[in-house]
Amino acid sequence: MATVMVGIDLGGTKVAIALVDANGNVVAAGRGATGITADPQATVASIATSIKELRASVAEAQVIGAGVGAAGQIDPATGTVRASPNLPGWNTIPLQAELEKALDLPVVVVNDVQAAAWGEWRYGAGQGVTDMVCLFVGTGIGGGVIAAGSLLAGCGGSAGELGHTVIERNGPECRCGNRGHLEAMAGGWAIARRASEAVAVDPEAGAALMALAEGSGEKLTAAHVSQAAHQGDPLAQRLVTETGDALSVGIASLVNAFNPCLVVLGGGVVEGLPELVEMAQERVPRYSLAVAAEPLRITNAALGEHAGVIGAATLAWERFGDAAPAGDRGS
Amino acid sequence: MATVMVGIDLGGTKVAIALVDANGNVVAAGRGATGITADPQATVASIATSIKELRASVAEAQVIGAGVGAAGQIDPATGTVRASPNLPGWNTIPLQAELEKALDLPVVVVNDVQAAAWGEWRYGAGQGVTDMVCLFVGTGIGGGVIAAGSLLAGCGGSAGELGHTVIERNGPECRCGNRGHLEAMAGGWAIARRASEAVAVDPEAGAALMALAEGSGEKLTAAHVSQAAHQGDPLAQRLVTETGDALSVGIASLVNAFNPCLVVLGGGVVEGLPELVEMAQERVPRYSLAVAAEPLRITNAALGEHAGVIGAATLAWERFGDAAPAGDRGS
Repeated sequence: MATVMVGIDLGGTKVAIALVDANGNVVAAGRGATGITADPQATVASIATSIKELRASVAEAQVIGAGVGAAGQIDPATGTVRASPNLPGWNTIPLQAELEKALDLPVVVVNDVQAAAWGEWRYGAGQGVTDMVCLFVGTGIGGGVIAAGSLLAGCGGSAGELGHTVIERNGPECRCGNRGHLEAMAGGWAIARRASEAVAVDPEAGAALMALAEGSGEKLTAAHVSQAAHQGDPLAQRLVTETGDALSVGIASLVNAFNPCLVVLGGGVVEGLPELVEMAQERVPRYSLAVAAEPLRITNAALGEHAGVIGAATLAWERFGDAAPAGDRGS
Repeated sequence: MATVMVGIDLGGTKVAIALVDANGNVVAAGRGATGITADPQATVASIATSIKELRASVAEAQVIGAGVGAAGQIDPATGTVRASPNLPGWNTIPLQAELEKALDLPVVVVNDVQAAAWGEWRYGAGQGVTDMVCLFVGTGIGGGVIAAGSLLAGCGGSAGELGHTVIERNGPECRCGNRGHLEAMAGGWAIARRASEAVAVDPEAGAALMALAEGSGEKLTAAHVSQAAHQGDPLAQRLVTETGDALSVGIASLVNAFNPCLVVLGGGVVEGLPELVEMAQERVPRYSLAVAAEPLRITNAALGEHAGVIGAATLAWERFGDAAPAGDRGS
């Protein structure tokens, strides 16, 4: 009988769940029956139901525990969600305790981006390196850091807020209220904002973008910028180049601070604009200290949307794997 | 008979040595007989002579090993100085091997700022915290990071180059060739440069500074700025405020990335301008994410000029301490 851990990726807009074996393989994957709701207890109950269904779909899988990557600030000691900018109503929610009760399994909870970084390190792009920085560029920019083979948690569990690295102290305002953060230039929402501002300044140059956004600058998204750039639109291409340069400036600071062997770039914006990785490969070494650039590689994330569930389940394997029958523990 | 380790702080302009017991106490301290020279072998021989004299000055001390903090890029695996911006001629020097031969002791070599950070963590301002960021603001700005109780080395041993954190991507040029780094605003050399530029722009406002620098803008130093500011000179005070603000912006990025419990500020510029610590205490929490600011304290370094020798010797204790007679190992 195969032993598995449940991996749960509890994002702001969706819940992904998977059964993951001791080698990081996804044995079965599904979605939560409903998305996140403002009611944490209802969400936990819904997740529990979805997991039950997923377990039932796999013959003879013995589930040992569960790992959760949750969007928000997690107290690593207790698995409590202290606050979540994306999960309204989720304040001081004892997620670990609630899930342990609902699933009757041991549960470990970490931040969702930290879980994804751990997945990429153990089974994705980061296998075999000691020191890795992950940046996931989606609507916002999240990060996760592996230092000497361990997930960097920090004093309160919030290490790796790499989207809030300053690149231009008097630059555009960030969602967090401060100015000039990497996310405020290169996050999906900021790309949309910059696009919207650019078409307002020069409607003629912005015609292609406006056509994609049904004539409304406010409807512009990073995906529109990606699409227009790949169709050869000069304004969109300029926005992409500016994004890649901002990203490279921010990454260079992180490279000087962390001296990683590897920077992994993932998330929807990077998937839509793979040229950002090439730009970073070209620019980051120039923007970094020579000594820090020397061992550095920059590459794409490898696990795609599965990074979170694999990472969360793998953390559960490391925490609770000793409960598995010895023959099933994998490597 | 007391057992001790030798701690060696091999800076760009001076060599400090000390005998340090297993509890981080400096039993005896001295200076290298000569400073660093372009000839590494002569420098090593000189250090060995100084250590021999220091040993002779302490009755009945059994020396077990030596730790070195050296200004430059160190290969942590071999203790080789790969390059040193401050030690001309020091390229690919097998410092560990040379010193082991000269001293007939086991030797461990790390970067000098990392050694000082380790000293502050073990026996100085950072005792008892899990995660700490140290910034030493002298002529340049060096850093050292303790993550989950370990010294962050990074992939090639150069982690913690925190002076080269971007705060203003198109800002003033740094010594490293890139732009807008924290060091290029708040390092001692950059404070001097900003002072020199400010007095050139407004000689009247710069009169007090110019008087201290014997009428030559090129002779201005950070110490002059400190002196004039403390005498009430408005221009110097403005320069200090700008320095504290730049420092706070840079620290906030690091706080978001590392989520430290503690930021320790040391070095000659901070010693000369203690108000920089107060400014950082006031501004960094505002410039950081609330979740990262929550557990954060900011304080002065506690070990002063001894941080480097204590940290280096302590690393030697941790590496070679098992060779000590059990009764002398301390806590």
